[in-house]
Amino acid sequence: MIEINGQHLINGQWTSLASHKFVSANPTTDTDNPWAFFEATIDEVNLAAICSQGAFAQYRRTSAEQRASFLEAIATEIENLGSQLVTTSMSETALPQARIEGERGRTCGQLRAFAANLRQPINPVFIDNAQPQRQPLPKADLRLTQIPLGPVVVFGASNFPLAFSTAGGDTASALAAGCPVIVKGHPAHPATTELVSHAINRAIKSTGMPSGVFGMLQSSTPQVAQALVEAPQIKAVGFTGSQKVGEILNKIAQNRACPIPFFGELGSTNPQFILAQLLAEQPAVLATNQVASMLMGHGQFCTSPGLVVVENSTGFEQFISSLTQAITDAAVGTMLTSGIAQAYQAQQSTLAANDKTTLLGQGKSDSGKCQTASALWTVSANDFIQDHSLHHEVFGPSALIVICDSSPQMLAVSEILTGQLTASIHGTTNEIIDAAALIDSVSQQVGRLMFNQMPTGVEVCHAMQHGGPYPASTTPQTTSVGSQAITRFTRPICLQNMPQQILPPQLRDNANAPQVVV
Amino acid sequence: MIEINGQHLINGQWTSLASHKFVSANPTTDTDNPWAFFEATIDEVNLAAICSQGAFAQYRRTSAEQRASFLEAIATEIENLGSQLVTTSMSETALPQARIEGERGRTCGQLRAFAANLRQPINPVFIDNAQPQRQPLPKADLRLTQIPLGPVVVFGASNFPLAFSTAGGDTASALAAGCPVIVKGHPAHPATTELVSHAINRAIKSTGMPSGVFGMLQSSTPQVAQALVEAPQIKAVGFTGSQKVGEILNKIAQNRACPIPFFGELGSTNPQFILAQLLAEQPAVLATNQVASMLMGHGQFCTSPGLVVVENSTGFEQFISSLTQAITDAAVGTMLTSGIAQAYQAQQSTLAANDKTTLLGQGKSDSGKCQTASALWTVSANDFIQDHSLHHEVFGPSALIVICDSSPQMLAVSEILTGQLTASIHGTTNEIIDAAALIDSVSQQVGRLMFNQMPTGVEVCHAMQHGGPYPASTTPQTTSVGSQAITRFTRPICLQNMPQQILPPQLRDNANAPQVVV
Repeated sequence: MIEINGQHLINGQWTSLASHKFVSANPTTDTDNPWAFFEATIDEVNLAAICSQGAFAQYRRTSAEQRASFLEAIATEIENLGSQLVTTSMSETALPQARIEGERGRTCGQLRAFAANLRQPINPVFIDNAQPQRQPLPKADLRLTQIPLGPVVVFGASNFPLAFSTAGGDTASALAAGCPVIVKGHPAHPATTELVSHAINRAIKSTGMPSGVFGMLQSSTPQVAQALVEAPQIKAVGFTGSQKVGEILNKIAQNRACPIPFFGELGSTNPQFILAQLLAEQPAVLATNQVASMLMGHGQFCTSPGLVVVENSTGFEQFISSLTQAITDAAVGTMLTSGIAQAYQAQQSTLAANDKTTLLGQGKSDSGKCQTASALWTVSANDFIQDHSLHHEVFGPSALIVICDSSPQMLAVSEILTGQLTASIHGTTNEIIDAAALIDSVSQQVGRLMFNQMPTGVEVCHAMQHGGPYPASTTPQTTSVGSQAITRFTRPICLQNMPQQILPPQLRDNANAPQVVV
Repeated sequence: MIEINGQHLINGQWTSLASHKFVSANPTTDTDNPWAFFEATIDEVNLAAICSQGAFAQYRRTSAEQRASFLEAIATEIENLGSQLVTTSMSETALPQARIEGERGRTCGQLRAFAANLRQPINPVFIDNAQPQRQPLPKADLRLTQIPLGPVVVFGASNFPLAFSTAGGDTASALAAGCPVIVKGHPAHPATTELVSHAINRAIKSTGMPSGVFGMLQSSTPQVAQALVEAPQIKAVGFTGSQKVGEILNKIAQNRACPIPFFGELGSTNPQFILAQLLAEQPAVLATNQVASMLMGHGQFCTSPGLVVVENSTGFEQFISSLTQAITDAAVGTMLTSGIAQAYQAQQSTLAANDKTTLLGQGKSDSGKCQTASALWTVSANDFIQDHSLHHEVFGPSALIVICDSSPQMLAVSEILTGQLTASIHGTTNEIIDAAALIDSVSQQVGRLMFNQMPTGVEVCHAMQHGGPYPASTTPQTTSVGSQAITRFTRPICLQNMPQQILPPQLRDNANAPQVVV
């Protein structure tokens, strides 16, 4: 068992300068957890940034094999935390044991997948061979590869305390890329953050990595977040969270003397378009799948389907009655924090006060501060198109059914959407083939477009795209999940006329790596 | 011969709403050129943006082959402008005929190279095949490709009136990617801009492209530039110019309600590091190459070598005396505009007033408003490190020789540099192999690192990287030259479980395109 010390991890040392502390709450019981955490100071932010920069000088020269072993050691050390990590995380998030264990598996699987990517890269390097005899001018030998950006700040996300937090996708990507990481722990799960930081620190020691390659600061204040983004040593930021906070931090990043990329995921309604023929054929199945998907993690998945666009045609009444039945049966759920629960309740009140929306049904409710009822609402397509307040994400188990009176109106709805992580089109094969205009329109708004599948459940693989037009992502040209996520933290460098002996291994003639040679 | 109409091109129509006009000057003669150009209005900006958005709906559905033919038609139509383009451009830029003709060749070659890239893509798509039997959860069929971002604004650059202007690298990249383009013509060469716009418009007609796929606005005011970056239809901006203007426009782009990528190239000193053994062996050759490179285009190349870092060791005196001779012999040159000439003279005065810098020699001078003398300055490494005012680019034929008293001091100089497009290390093979620390340090600051070659002359090829850490580029993870420049204007989309029949051709099973399949 690790005793929670409540401190920060800087350069391999557990440390704290401030006397002020904060605690995390157990959302299930509405009581404080039995640990207290020091608030990081601005001096600690600056020290962590300097140590991170120092470690970068060593870490960027490690081989792909060394980094792969490091990532694998982190995965093993996380597993070695055993049940302490699971029970600690449960007490900070109210997520059930199976979910935490599954998320741990995903987190460790991702670290190992990135290790495999390092050993067997899938992105080619580009080699333009010299043409010394070319007229009118000779061509030089030019070789293009990627190098790491530098120290990266990662903001832990509340809704995935393992997979999008301390050793989650952003951290794994940055470490794989060759960048040191400073994690700003999410204040809702600081003990989980500390445990995972212990695991990473053990992996640093066992694999001989520079001690400053990973740092962790606990904080519940905006000042520390801001100072981390402002620190001149920091070269990129990974963030998953609210649009409001993300926009503040992104503006800080872009208004620095030297702007840096801010890889932020800020919210998505993940619209589901249901075509008429499939609706006629299987209205009940479509309804069941919708509610099952939106209730996963009590609606706190970034890909939760919060918008359903459907035509009032054959099967619609059955669809609606099945939806109503399923949502009414939905158990009460516990939100991650009381703040998230309050925000959800406020958005539900706003929907109730909107005279264009109708409550279709609600799940069971309870009196706890963090317990909320699931909900389904309806609105006509015309009203939806005109009321921009309905276009934003409701974070939690709530979805809005947009009722169209024609397929052109469904197309009109698709055209006014803001950027989304995902969308799904549900239809028979024939009607999907005929839906070229809708597919083209929806493609403009999303990073991942699905057919006859629900959006929850994001595969960590080569072909994944997790990130869509703003505000789904602040950087829609990148993904935060999958092997391409690593390249967020690298930049291209062209080496011209460099002697073969000192070329990076993957750039040498006939290297055992994917090369495009011309 | 085309008669210059002084108007804007919007949706295939030559048009002008304002009565106010501006003229361009002939820098060689200090007189106005014989054409006048309407200032674009904000209404015209908005109309162009709307037409661009309208064209995008069609243009994004064109095939790679259709876009390739369009790019080739543009190249042919530019060549068809014949000598009118050359003489017009000469009268607006003072660049000599051979240079304009060479730049035209490069511009058309680039359009044709991008057409070839469209027909034979070099970047793979990624395919994760479905695993319906996988436990505990089946894996979906996931396929990752790129789609165009949307309408792009391109700011013409003064120093490459063809290759980085109306139909230059940014425009060619965006059109190849499937994005419509609005060019804001550079006010120093509006007639050149108009001629090339005629050529593009002819290519649009001959290949049946939507008329709004290319628009052009003439303007000499910051308001029009700002309105273009703010227009909500615009999804990305390409810019090459001064750090001051670039930073203003970048902040506008990042502070929009929906921020957009701003691909800006803002300046670079392109440092040259000369190692001791090679200096001892060939000091005169090194000096000659330095001066020849810095005088290309009268120092107005983005890769002009403006900084030379050298040790005061064997050969140094010969190097200095050869530099002095070469610069003293340098002919007077004409800058692109009187504004650029004034800025250059002001920076020369600042260098003269700096008590740490010494004038090594000056080229010939003349009294014309745009004529300037080349210059070489020296400073000690210690003084250079402490005086940040010396770290910025001087746009024009001026370079600063930083004199080190040891190789550790050369390393110290490399570590305090800001971001650069390029750097070169000159040395014998043995001393390059021994220079790991310097190579590592310089790599952190540059997009392209050369060995024993000068930076001027940027190859358009697959392995090129033209863009380095800020301020060399606002987006160091991208290149503005070479085939990878096209991907600046696309974003990834993952198509999940899409029927084979409607997959984009490159994503179908066994397609004739580079695929990574797992």
